[in-house]
Amino acid sequence: MTESALPLTGFYAVIPAGGIGSRLWPLSRADAPKFLHDLTGSGSSLLRDTWDRLVPLAGADRVMVVTGRAHRAAVEEQIPALADLNVVLESEPRDSSAAIGLAAAILEKREPGVVIGSFAADHVIRGTRFFTQAVREAVAVARAGYIATIGIRPSEAAVGFGYIHAPGSASIDGAPTAFEVDSFVEKPSAQKAEEYLASGDYLWNAGMYIAKASVILDALAVTEPALHAGLIELAEAWDTPTRGAVVDKVWPKLKKIAIDYSLAEPAAVAGKLMTIPGEFDWDDVGDFASIAKLHSSGYKKDLAILGEGARVLSDSSNGIVVSEAGRTIAVVGVKDIVIVDTPDALLITTTANAQRVKSVVDALRLAGRDDVL
Amino acid sequence: MTESALPLTGFYAVIPAGGIGSRLWPLSRADAPKFLHDLTGSGSSLLRDTWDRLVPLAGADRVMVVTGRAHRAAVEEQIPALADLNVVLESEPRDSSAAIGLAAAILEKREPGVVIGSFAADHVIRGTRFFTQAVREAVAVARAGYIATIGIRPSEAAVGFGYIHAPGSASIDGAPTAFEVDSFVEKPSAQKAEEYLASGDYLWNAGMYIAKASVILDALAVTEPALHAGLIELAEAWDTPTRGAVVDKVWPKLKKIAIDYSLAEPAAVAGKLMTIPGEFDWDDVGDFASIAKLHSSGYKKDLAILGEGARVLSDSSNGIVVSEAGRTIAVVGVKDIVIVDTPDALLITTTANAQRVKSVVDALRLAGRDDVL
Repeated sequence: MTESALPLTGFYAVIPAGGIGSRLWPLSRADAPKFLHDLTGSGSSLLRDTWDRLVPLAGADRVMVVTGRAHRAAVEEQIPALADLNVVLESEPRDSSAAIGLAAAILEKREPGVVIGSFAADHVIRGTRFFTQAVREAVAVARAGYIATIGIRPSEAAVGFGYIHAPGSASIDGAPTAFEVDSFVEKPSAQKAEEYLASGDYLWNAGMYIAKASVILDALAVTEPALHAGLIELAEAWDTPTRGAVVDKVWPKLKKIAIDYSLAEPAAVAGKLMTIPGEFDWDDVGDFASIAKLHSSGYKKDLAILGEGARVLSDSSNGIVVSEAGRTIAVVGVKDIVIVDTPDALLITTTANAQRVKSVVDALRLAGRDDVL
Repeated sequence: MTESALPLTGFYAVIPAGGIGSRLWPLSRADAPKFLHDLTGSGSSLLRDTWDRLVPLAGADRVMVVTGRAHRAAVEEQIPALADLNVVLESEPRDSSAAIGLAAAILEKREPGVVIGSFAADHVIRGTRFFTQAVREAVAVARAGYIATIGIRPSEAAVGFGYIHAPGSASIDGAPTAFEVDSFVEKPSAQKAEEYLASGDYLWNAGMYIAKASVILDALAVTEPALHAGLIELAEAWDTPTRGAVVDKVWPKLKKIAIDYSLAEPAAVAGKLMTIPGEFDWDDVGDFASIAKLHSSGYKKDLAILGEGARVLSDSSNGIVVSEAGRTIAVVGVKDIVIVDTPDALLITTTANAQRVKSVVDALRLAGRDDVL
């Protein structure tokens, strides 16, 4: 009895749009975070791509964005169709448990029994048909009272992602490909990653969670009771005139904790977490090496070039150029290079060192250089 | 009977300030050629450094600069003491035979019997005492009726320079270290360069020529009679009201030929060219690799940084950054890199590929991108 009609009944999509993406400095900044950029050359931002992927599944009036107050205007510019009702603004970042938990609490109050799915605003997915199918099954898992996560079938022995160990299939109506999650595994060594790939029992953890809002809230009530109480207080006030006052009082005190720790890992231990293997291409675009890879596989160019109106001359070079400053850029005989050219800051690194860009951001912050952060 | 007083009697220094320095793009431009830049971090331009080196030898009123009309203001800004009489402006570039030949013709007319020495405006010299001694000997050679060139004692088996083969000493009063030039040799292979270095009979050709103006003119009359006739016509008119009209008529038609071919090579064949080995550090700063080397040996920095107020963060990188755009530049884990950051153009290459920058300039010219040339 696999449901085939779209949008899915009783389903709400939630997009937490929070992280800046420090390893993508100087492209990503405090006032222009990763999700507002077009990193794929699709012509639209990662946030917009995420929205476009979810609207067919949930309906345009049933996709909620949780973001910082500072990004409200930019988010609404990206998504003109986003209703006020579906914008949840954070006065300050309190991590993913608070962001997703608040969405769950608000939506459960508005529509008891609703199933919600949380999908990051800044990931890249290619293969929407497979994504849609995976969400469909995940919603079936959620309706059965479990928490579902869509894991990604590894295409290589990646060491930059966490893994989900799920050796045994589950048996859930409407979710023929579901597996029971045994445990989460941190980013592995290269050797471990090879073993995971070979075994076939491991998926990449993409941080996508689908469950009844009530299931999420009940789980948080056990693992993080103070956080849960705060979220309930916020939700009670949300659609009333007291929202502002309650937000000011409660939100800044909520515990900062990733939802992987507050919800997913305890659920895995309790046997309540199922995973649907996603057979689509996925990347969290964590650094410029990811972007270079996305583009070199997609376009087979020696030097991937991002940026509207980029004027790049390349001779015997490969890697990636992000051109945001409108200048002529010449690249001569440089291999695996990463060049990010913005009006006030320039980054030069290599794909192998792309992860270390965060250290530059840390150094600039220590030096009080908030003007370029 | 070595003369010891300075300035040297009857000596005039000539500085041809012409070439743009394409391999130093985007730092060097048509309107900001190489000689106007401070490439050594000395705080003054190469032209000014050249001037400062020559004034003690010739006297401040006896140093002539031959440059393009477009550079007049910049040259005068660099050298406020430069007298109008000592500025020779080219309406368009006609190569070094015309530039130096015109200076010779003007100066011979003004002061028959004068010895002139030509020194490029855009080379770097360290060890002024040795330079001064070499010029002193070269002037003695010139007074004896020969053409002198100061060759540079090689410090390594360089493949980027031409060589002078001079195995036999000369015997000239006042020039105890002079050798007779046997021949010129083009830029050698690495193996040949090693042989040259080991033999001790080869010097780098630095293009410095010292001779009586009349000797230069007489030689040109034989090798390039039409050019010689044009230069004499220009010199006759130079200090008269007809200068402008004669320049407009004659200058654009002068043959473009390097003085190495019109003067030095024929003189070597005729046994009239002597060389003084220069025991000082010299570089023609032909590309960014040269600049990187100049700075890494001088400062022992991992990443050489040029540019006033440069703000560069470097992590595990080496090479050179030229910062002319005032932006924050972060360089992470990049080896032997060359980064040249200007307001409208950015170059990224490696020291090993620095010679190939000229191809970028050629490509930009073909593409009609004169705005950045």
